[in-house]
Amino acid sequence: MEERVFNFSAGPATLPLPVLEKVQSELLSYPGAGASVMEISHRSKVFAEIHANAKANIAKLLNLSEKHHVLFLQGGASLQFSMLAMNFLQGGTADYVHSGSWATKAMAEAKKIGTVNTAWSGKADNFVRMPKPDELQLTDGAAYVHFTSNETIQGITMFEEPETGDTPLVCDASSDFLSRPLDISKYALLYAGAQKNVGPAGTAVVILRDDMLAKVPEGLPSLLDYKIMADKDSLYNTPSCFIIYIIGEVTRWILDEFGGLEEMAAHNEAKAALVYDLIDESGGYYRGHAAKDSRSKMNIAFRLPSEELEAKFVANAKAAGLDGLKGHRSVGGCRASIYNAMPKAGCEALRDFMAAFQKDNG
Amino acid sequence: MEERVFNFSAGPATLPLPVLEKVQSELLSYPGAGASVMEISHRSKVFAEIHANAKANIAKLLNLSEKHHVLFLQGGASLQFSMLAMNFLQGGTADYVHSGSWATKAMAEAKKIGTVNTAWSGKADNFVRMPKPDELQLTDGAAYVHFTSNETIQGITMFEEPETGDTPLVCDASSDFLSRPLDISKYALLYAGAQKNVGPAGTAVVILRDDMLAKVPEGLPSLLDYKIMADKDSLYNTPSCFIIYIIGEVTRWILDEFGGLEEMAAHNEAKAALVYDLIDESGGYYRGHAAKDSRSKMNIAFRLPSEELEAKFVANAKAAGLDGLKGHRSVGGCRASIYNAMPKAGCEALRDFMAAFQKDNG
Repeated sequence: MEERVFNFSAGPATLPLPVLEKVQSELLSYPGAGASVMEISHRSKVFAEIHANAKANIAKLLNLSEKHHVLFLQGGASLQFSMLAMNFLQGGTADYVHSGSWATKAMAEAKKIGTVNTAWSGKADNFVRMPKPDELQLTDGAAYVHFTSNETIQGITMFEEPETGDTPLVCDASSDFLSRPLDISKYALLYAGAQKNVGPAGTAVVILRDDMLAKVPEGLPSLLDYKIMADKDSLYNTPSCFIIYIIGEVTRWILDEFGGLEEMAAHNEAKAALVYDLIDESGGYYRGHAAKDSRSKMNIAFRLPSEELEAKFVANAKAAGLDGLKGHRSVGGCRASIYNAMPKAGCEALRDFMAAFQKDNG
Repeated sequence: MEERVFNFSAGPATLPLPVLEKVQSELLSYPGAGASVMEISHRSKVFAEIHANAKANIAKLLNLSEKHHVLFLQGGASLQFSMLAMNFLQGGTADYVHSGSWATKAMAEAKKIGTVNTAWSGKADNFVRMPKPDELQLTDGAAYVHFTSNETIQGITMFEEPETGDTPLVCDASSDFLSRPLDISKYALLYAGAQKNVGPAGTAVVILRDDMLAKVPEGLPSLLDYKIMADKDSLYNTPSCFIIYIIGEVTRWILDEFGGLEEMAAHNEAKAALVYDLIDESGGYYRGHAAKDSRSKMNIAFRLPSEELEAKFVANAKAAGLDGLKGHRSVGGCRASIYNAMPKAGCEALRDFMAAFQKDNG
């Protein structure tokens, strides 16, 4: 096997090596199936067990009650932007927290369906921070309040949920899903593209409170109808079986390796601190994009003194086995994505590389 | 490794063993990436090449010109049922060939968006055959004519396309895509869920003629807008990268192993003949569902003299390493799906098993 690099890609992102090794060992013949997971019917007993395990792992990690459905839907978070509006916004107004690039996209899709109220916007400040819950201007009788818990591109996290009273709380948790504990009882709908923290691209994990199903209008396209997808347990049509299998393995890895989300969060905080401390101690050579109290533990966006140095940093890092550090074109600079599956050794290697690079290029 | 069975599942379905072996060998580290294909950015140079290769293989097999786009879209064929109607049917009438279970589903989704004219229906005859092109009652000025080239559940194939003049021809080719040559220049839109003939579940291959893009209305959800998806070359959001990679490997396998679709079709015909000949020579013990001139080379639906014998047949076959032979609940009986990747040895083994079963249970 060719050597594996430390992969700081923002998504699709690095997966736990023990998971990849298990998937590899089972690729030609899954135990009891005599075929790859890619080849077996989504109605088979073997797949039913794979599916049930993935749901059970997520339920265990989030301490879910019977009130919430766990769905695996194709189209990623981007299709959820439209689907949630088609299901819950038609003819109404929803409050959106305008926190960064992904919130902007979610709002653009919702505006095609209903009225979007900007409850708060960080745009004038270049999206360097998240709001406190009491900064939000919420609409009476809104269909829902939508926020993006972690902005992947800007590297900022909203650690406290908006306080919405009886208004349903909706969250795009794509890039910090299962990275830290959350009180799921507050959420009417939480969705996450799999390709950051829980699997390969091609599926969104959707956690939907049962009482929301009564609000779904008649006549939606079946695949965009939460009621149909919940009633059919994500099996109205053929789901992305292989991705669901890997989500099950990744969530099993969290449980086996860490025990739960408290421990996962402590691990992620320790990893992030390695890089943020280096930034803070660099005397301004490295400048973080995020305000300190909004700093994401998943995506660290930072600048160097010049674009030339940034390009050199990314190229030299790649040559040193640290890949995917180029920032998103909309923010520029560099970005290190250090999701659950990034080992501490990867963050240590990055920190050491950053220190050495500054010494050589300071 | 546990032994692999002959897997007659209707989809997700068996994949070529050489493809699975290559995917397995590259699972931890794709050449040049230092990471799994599951882990690398969809904007990376490595994935761009994987994506381009998959498109090029399909273009080569179908002799595509620049006039057609090849897209990889999430949601399978079932989401295409809605997407094509949202893009091309709003406020209009479309002609649908009502040929079986999948056509029924396509029509139900289209009816939510516009007017559906049933150009022909095989329902009264229990969907045992496809129409000849001259049997269709087409609407003047229809938005499009839709047909299902192969009905997976009933095991019937429409070998001749409807003749539609200037009206765009639209085809759900999910279960016979790339199993035989077709004249793609006749098609405005052809779509196929990957999980029958070209890959794992989770992506539809969509082949769209460029002139159709001018018809796409404004304001559709971005992920359901063919114009956006074509302009962004399937990369508006993160696609199912790993599935696209496998589609590229499966289509490469067709080219390497068979050369093209003429040879692929000859192979499939020889395979299917092994089973149909046994059925025809069984003196009525086995009864095929399909009328002879509509017989699918992909899905062979058949009955035995009683439901008890059918249950015994399926169970004994499974014990003998022939899995997935239970028919769909809507038709009953048995079904052998023998897509491109089913080796001839699998069809020989099935034929021999069927002969022995009849002898023992006749």
